[in-house]
Amino acid sequence: MKAWQFTDTHAPLKLTEVPDPTPGEGEVVLDLKAAGLCHSDVGLMEDEGWLSMLAKRPIIIGHENAGVVSEVGPGVTDFQVGDRVGVCPTTAAGAPGYSYDGGFAEKMAVATEALVPLPDNVDFINGAAATDAGMTSYAAIITQGGVKEGDKVGIIGLGGLGQVGAQVAMLAGAEVYVAEINEQVWPLAQELGVRGVKKSIDEFQDVTFDVIVDFAGFDTTTAQAVDIIRRDGTVVVVGMGKLESTISTKSLILNQARLVGSNGGTKSDVAGIYEYMATGRLNPTITTIGFDEIPEGLEKLKNGEVVGRLVASFE
Amino acid sequence: MKAWQFTDTHAPLKLTEVPDPTPGEGEVVLDLKAAGLCHSDVGLMEDEGWLSMLAKRPIIIGHENAGVVSEVGPGVTDFQVGDRVGVCPTTAAGAPGYSYDGGFAEKMAVATEALVPLPDNVDFINGAAATDAGMTSYAAIITQGGVKEGDKVGIIGLGGLGQVGAQVAMLAGAEVYVAEINEQVWPLAQELGVRGVKKSIDEFQDVTFDVIVDFAGFDTTTAQAVDIIRRDGTVVVVGMGKLESTISTKSLILNQARLVGSNGGTKSDVAGIYEYMATGRLNPTITTIGFDEIPEGLEKLKNGEVVGRLVASFE
Repeated sequence: MKAWQFTDTHAPLKLTEVPDPTPGEGEVVLDLKAAGLCHSDVGLMEDEGWLSMLAKRPIIIGHENAGVVSEVGPGVTDFQVGDRVGVCPTTAAGAPGYSYDGGFAEKMAVATEALVPLPDNVDFINGAAATDAGMTSYAAIITQGGVKEGDKVGIIGLGGLGQVGAQVAMLAGAEVYVAEINEQVWPLAQELGVRGVKKSIDEFQDVTFDVIVDFAGFDTTTAQAVDIIRRDGTVVVVGMGKLESTISTKSLILNQARLVGSNGGTKSDVAGIYEYMATGRLNPTITTIGFDEIPEGLEKLKNGEVVGRLVASFE
Repeated sequence: MKAWQFTDTHAPLKLTEVPDPTPGEGEVVLDLKAAGLCHSDVGLMEDEGWLSMLAKRPIIIGHENAGVVSEVGPGVTDFQVGDRVGVCPTTAAGAPGYSYDGGFAEKMAVATEALVPLPDNVDFINGAAATDAGMTSYAAIITQGGVKEGDKVGIIGLGGLGQVGAQVAMLAGAEVYVAEINEQVWPLAQELGVRGVKKSIDEFQDVTFDVIVDFAGFDTTTAQAVDIIRRDGTVVVVGMGKLESTISTKSLILNQARLVGSNGGTKSDVAGIYEYMATGRLNPTITTIGFDEIPEGLEKLKNGEVVGRLVASFE
């Protein structure tokens, strides 16, 4: 099969003909249909700091994958040939493209514990994209934030994660207000249907927030959220724009509020985002390219030329 | 009846003969048996900032109360004459000594919603002390911290609240480690039966903490706790030694940890601490004085001359 192999930092990905994978005990082989490209792939290409995370080299990278089961290994009873699935990158099986060969290839072998059934009406492109950004946003909003119907939710930062996060919160029945410093993104916020958009979250003086999710994480953004959250409310911090924040512990104590870190997600978060996608009402912005265009795609990602998530479609 | 009335800041409490209270709808009258003296009482005597919290003046102060029901008002069905009770200062009924006449008196009228039954084998002195410091410690450790059997718990600051907090955590079945900057308090920590005591929480390099409760709240104490808490662990901040803390949001995110403010408590926290007291294994250090010594007691509290909680016993 054809595969894009990573050999070393600062070296281009190498299009190679490698043997088709075979499924080990508890594994399946997927015919891959889509693979997302991620800023962390760009990081890996540029920064030696990532090398220690790789189980081997050369390795086929690509950690946002969806496809169809084409072969099942010994002991596999929960999946069968023909099943449409996405691959959760955060299970004990490890991450594709790091712990084992990933998805910039025609096929991959993967432990069934990483598989999440893809609903029939969710396409592979969305199925792949949802395994990283979708999962992360869902985990922040629903699992860590506990957002539920009727909540007033603040979203700080309307980048890729924030956009999905805002939609997830609205699908959960929340009223959503967005703080985004870049006014060029404001029309998008309106388009998504949020109740309001301002430069900073503390400008919403008439709103009592139940939950605020800080996808930016620029110190003051988190501090502002802690200052204005309601009594017993929750602030979730996801973004690492800065690595520290000076927060008012006085506000946290007097409001008996909680500040929660959210990092990635789990299979159930992937399943949750698939469920929302299946409603047809969650449509993240995605740019698609072909399998052969993966290196150019990473270059564009690096240069900030991509709108929304970038996914290679193999169909 | 005799009562100590507060008239104004910087003025001494005034021992006055006032009419016995009568119980209104949904109220009882308590024959008071014990009333705790608190640093906030000293604050009220010294600082005009507290005046706005008083519903009237003169007012009988004292917000840590326990006694026996001696009369029941119209509509009261859940309590009867002879019941031993403590008074929770944080219910919708308001706080005794602030919203209505408090406990530095022979009797007080109080709404039944503020009453917590006092177990037979818990004396009134402990019953009174538990309604403030005990409730606050229990809320921080159990309600906000979620401490349970087998947890490794860090306690930062072994003052009045921290001492009760450490005992509550041990009674919940946790292994407790104490960070206390004042080495003179270390023998007390040993006496309480904690696993270890050091100057700062990050010196326990071999301990993976499930929960850390910061009763000091001196900026760096909270920051250290956030840095070392286990993945998915909880840091509770109670103390306001400083009003801000510069925490690593990176640690919070990567560990997916939560930082929770804890402020006071509720009736169920008072009931919880009474339950532990009833085991005979929770004995906070208490200094007792008589009803007539209340002004001198406040003076001693102000001068830092009191060991443990200070309670006036009326028996």
